[in-house]
Amino acid sequence: MKGLTDDTIAAISTPFGTAGIGKIRVSGSGAIDVADRIFKGVKDKSLKNVNTYTAHYGYVVEPESGKMVDEVIVIVMRGPHSFTGEDVVEFDCHGGMIPLKKVLEVLLNNGARLAEPGEFSKRAFLNGRIDLAQAEGIMEVINSKTDKGLDVAINHLTGKLSNKITGIKNEVIRLLAHLEAAIDFPEDEIEGFEPDELGNRINGIKDEIEDLLATSDQGKIYQEGLKAVIVGKPNVGKSSLLNSLVQENRAIVTDIPGTTRDIIEEYINIRGIPLRIIDTAGIRETRDMVEKIGVEKTRNSLREADLVLFMLDVAQGLTEEDIKIYDMVKDKPMIVLVNKTDLDREIDEKKIKDHFKEHPLLWISVKEEIGLDNLKEAIIEEVVSEEVNVSDNIFITRVRHKDAMKKAVHSINRVKESLNQGLPYDFLTIDLKDCLDALGEITGETVTEDIIDRIFADFCLGK
Amino acid sequence: MKGLTDDTIAAISTPFGTAGIGKIRVSGSGAIDVADRIFKGVKDKSLKNVNTYTAHYGYVVEPESGKMVDEVIVIVMRGPHSFTGEDVVEFDCHGGMIPLKKVLEVLLNNGARLAEPGEFSKRAFLNGRIDLAQAEGIMEVINSKTDKGLDVAINHLTGKLSNKITGIKNEVIRLLAHLEAAIDFPEDEIEGFEPDELGNRINGIKDEIEDLLATSDQGKIYQEGLKAVIVGKPNVGKSSLLNSLVQENRAIVTDIPGTTRDIIEEYINIRGIPLRIIDTAGIRETRDMVEKIGVEKTRNSLREADLVLFMLDVAQGLTEEDIKIYDMVKDKPMIVLVNKTDLDREIDEKKIKDHFKEHPLLWISVKEEIGLDNLKEAIIEEVVSEEVNVSDNIFITRVRHKDAMKKAVHSINRVKESLNQGLPYDFLTIDLKDCLDALGEITGETVTEDIIDRIFADFCLGK
Repeated sequence: MKGLTDDTIAAISTPFGTAGIGKIRVSGSGAIDVADRIFKGVKDKSLKNVNTYTAHYGYVVEPESGKMVDEVIVIVMRGPHSFTGEDVVEFDCHGGMIPLKKVLEVLLNNGARLAEPGEFSKRAFLNGRIDLAQAEGIMEVINSKTDKGLDVAINHLTGKLSNKITGIKNEVIRLLAHLEAAIDFPEDEIEGFEPDELGNRINGIKDEIEDLLATSDQGKIYQEGLKAVIVGKPNVGKSSLLNSLVQENRAIVTDIPGTTRDIIEEYINIRGIPLRIIDTAGIRETRDMVEKIGVEKTRNSLREADLVLFMLDVAQGLTEEDIKIYDMVKDKPMIVLVNKTDLDREIDEKKIKDHFKEHPLLWISVKEEIGLDNLKEAIIEEVVSEEVNVSDNIFITRVRHKDAMKKAVHSINRVKESLNQGLPYDFLTIDLKDCLDALGEITGETVTEDIIDRIFADFCLGK
Repeated sequence: MKGLTDDTIAAISTPFGTAGIGKIRVSGSGAIDVADRIFKGVKDKSLKNVNTYTAHYGYVVEPESGKMVDEVIVIVMRGPHSFTGEDVVEFDCHGGMIPLKKVLEVLLNNGARLAEPGEFSKRAFLNGRIDLAQAEGIMEVINSKTDKGLDVAINHLTGKLSNKITGIKNEVIRLLAHLEAAIDFPEDEIEGFEPDELGNRINGIKDEIEDLLATSDQGKIYQEGLKAVIVGKPNVGKSSLLNSLVQENRAIVTDIPGTTRDIIEEYINIRGIPLRIIDTAGIRETRDMVEKIGVEKTRNSLREADLVLFMLDVAQGLTEEDIKIYDMVKDKPMIVLVNKTDLDREIDEKKIKDHFKEHPLLWISVKEEIGLDNLKEAIIEEVVSEEVNVSDNIFITRVRHKDAMKKAVHSINRVKESLNQGLPYDFLTIDLKDCLDALGEITGETVTEDIIDRIFADFCLGK
C-alpha cells in the first residue's frame, strides 16, 4: 500500500474554458519550495515562512526571464492537514487558457511534474487521509446529476458509507476473534457460543450486508441516472413529449443564470432520479442516405435503454406499424402512452388494454398537458422496482462495491451453511475472513495496487 | 462615480464543466455573515472571528434542512484589501454542476444575490481598487490567445498602461496649470513661457500620445488575433495547407496533456500573433442543396478576413477559375501561394508575377513542406504593416482606448494650432482640458456610468 513517490505534482484543477478564476494545485514535499520559487508576494515574504491555511496576494514570475505571468492568490496548506496529506499550494489564477497554461508551464519548469488524473486523490488515499470509498465519493459528488444524487455522494465522501461498512466489519472481527479463541482454547467455556446465539450473530451480519446490497440498484440510478427512449411511429408526438418534459425541467436547471444547459440539460430530474430521455425521431434527422445510420443509432439507443416510452396515437388506432415497433422493444421495461386524447378516439380502448396488458398504460395529451404528472409517477414506479428501506440515505452506487458486497454475502452464506452442518469452527473462520476481505475491498484495505491504479485513472485531471 | 449598492453578491467564478474544483465567490459588506450562516468548519469556529487571508476546511450546510451540501475550503479576505475592496469569501467546492449549483443556491437563500456579469470587477473599479484600463486588462488576460498576448494584457492589468497614461496626463495638467496661472496673473512673468518652449512642451505631449496610438493596430492583433482565409479552386491544396499549419501548431498547444484543443486549436501562433486560419473548402462540405449556404458562408468569411491566402496550382497554370476567384478577393490584403512546386510546372512564371505583382508571391509545396517558413514570415510582414517602436511592451489593444487616444490627438492638435495662430491662452486651455478628458476615459475618471455599465456587462459571470 506504500509506493509513494516523493515528487511534487501540479495540475489545473478547474474545468477548462474561460471564466474569472482558474486554479492550479501543487502537492508534494517540495510544493512550497517550488511555489516560492515562482511567486512574488506583494509583501515580499517567502511562502516558506507563512502559516498553514493562509492566502497570499501576488504575482507568478518566471524566474528565468523575470517576466510576470499572472496575478494570483496563493493558498498554502501544510501536510498532514491538507487534501493530499502532503504540503499543498494552490494558485488561483485568471481563468483563461493561456494564463493557466503559462503558470502551469512555469511550475513544471521549476521542480513540479504534471500530475496524472486522480493523482491528488490517490495520494490522499495512500496517505490515509481518506479511504477508497471516500475517494470514489469525490468523483460521485462531482458527477452528481440531481440534488438527491449529491446527497448520496456526500454520504460516501464524508465516510458515512465507510462507517457503515466498518461497523459490519467490526462485528465480523469480533465474531472471528471469538471463534479463534474457541479454536485455540477448546477446553474453555466461551460465553455466548450456544449454536443459536452464534447463528443469530451470523444472521445479523448477513442481514446488514443484504440490506445494504439491496440499495445498489436504486443507488446506481441516483448516481448515474436512467436512459429512457421514446419510440413510436412518425407524428405520434415523440418530440413534443420530449420538449414538454425537458422544457419544464429546463426552468429548473437554468433558474440560475449562467448555468450552461449543455452539460445536464439532457437529464430530467424526476424525484431525484436523473432521467435522460432520447427521442428516436431526433436520431434520424434526414431521410435519404442517412437513414441507415439513423436506424443503427436507434437500435443502439434501444439496446442501452433502461426504459422505453412507447407512444400510440389515439386518433389513428393501433396500426400495423405500431405493432411492428412494439415487437422490436417489447422485452424492455416499458410504459405505453396513448397520446392525443384531446382528439376524437379512433382507438379501441379494450383492444389496447388487452394488447399491452403487461405494461402500464397511460392516456395522455402532450398538447393539452394532460397526464404528464401520471407519467412521471409511472416512470418512478417502473424503474424503482421495490421501495428500499433506507433509513440513513446510504446507498451502494458502484458496481465495484456491489460486487464486493455480493462476495461478502456469498461468504457469509457459507459460514451459515458450515454452522448448520456442524462443521468445525475452522471452516467458519476461513469464510468469515473472506467476508472481511470482501468488505475491505470497498474501503480499500484489501485491494491490489493494480485496482487502485485503475480506480484513480478514471478520475479527472487535477483531482 | 458612487452608486454602490451595499448588498452581497455571489457567483460561480470558475468555468462550467466537470473538474476537481469549482469556486464560488461572495462579496459585499454581508459576505462574511452570509458565509458564516452556511459554513460549518471542522474546528467549529465562526468565520466572523477569523483573520483575513486565511483558509478554512469544513462543510456547507443548508441551514433550513441541516443537510450537508458539499465539503469545501473557504477563504476569507476582508476589505479593503481584497479583489473588490469589500469583504470577500470564496468557497472552493467540488467542481461539478450540481454541488456548485447547490452551494450557490444555499448562498442565495441566505442573504446573497446573484452577481451580474463583471460585477465583482465593477465593484473593484468603483471602490478604487483598480482603474478602468486595469479592469479591462482582467478580461484581456483571460481571453489572451498567445504568450505575447498575455504579456500585453498583464501590462494592462498591472497598471503599466495606466501609469503611462497618467504620466502624459500629468504633463498636460502641469502645462494647464502654467497656462492658467499666466491667464490669472498676466502681469507676472512666468518662466519658461517663450512661445518656442511652449510649442516644445505641446509637441512632446503630442508625440507621446501618437507613439502610444501607433501601437494600437499591432496591439489589437496580439489581443484578438487575425483571421486568414485560404481561397482557391478545388484541389489546389487548401485543406492540406490548413492541416500542415495547424498540425505543427497543435504540438505546441497540446504539449501539456489535458489542455483541450477545442478552445484554442484554431489559433495558430505565429511569433506571438494568434492567427485563425479558415479553409473555405471546409465551409461547403456537401455539394448539392447546401451549396448555396456554403457560398454565403464563404462570402461572410471573406468579408471578415484580415488576410487572404490565395492558392494556385503550379501544375495547372493560371485558369479562368483562378482569375474569377482572385477578382472576388483582390481588395483584401493577400499573399499569393503557388502550390505543388514538387510537380512539373505548367505555369508561366512571368505571367503569374505580372498578374499578381501587387501581392507577395510565394512558391510552395505543402506536400514536401517547402516554403512554409517563408509563408509565416510573409504573413507577419503583411499584417504587421510597420514595425512599431515599443520599448516597454505597452500596447493599446482596445477600440475604446484607440478612440480616446484619437480624441486626445485631435485636441492637442487644436492646442498647437491656437498657439501658432497666437490666440489667447484661454483657447489653449479649453482644448488641453478636452485632451485630459479624453485620456481620462481610458483610466475611467471621465466616463459616464452608462459606459461603465456597458464595459462590465461584457465581462464573464463571476469576474
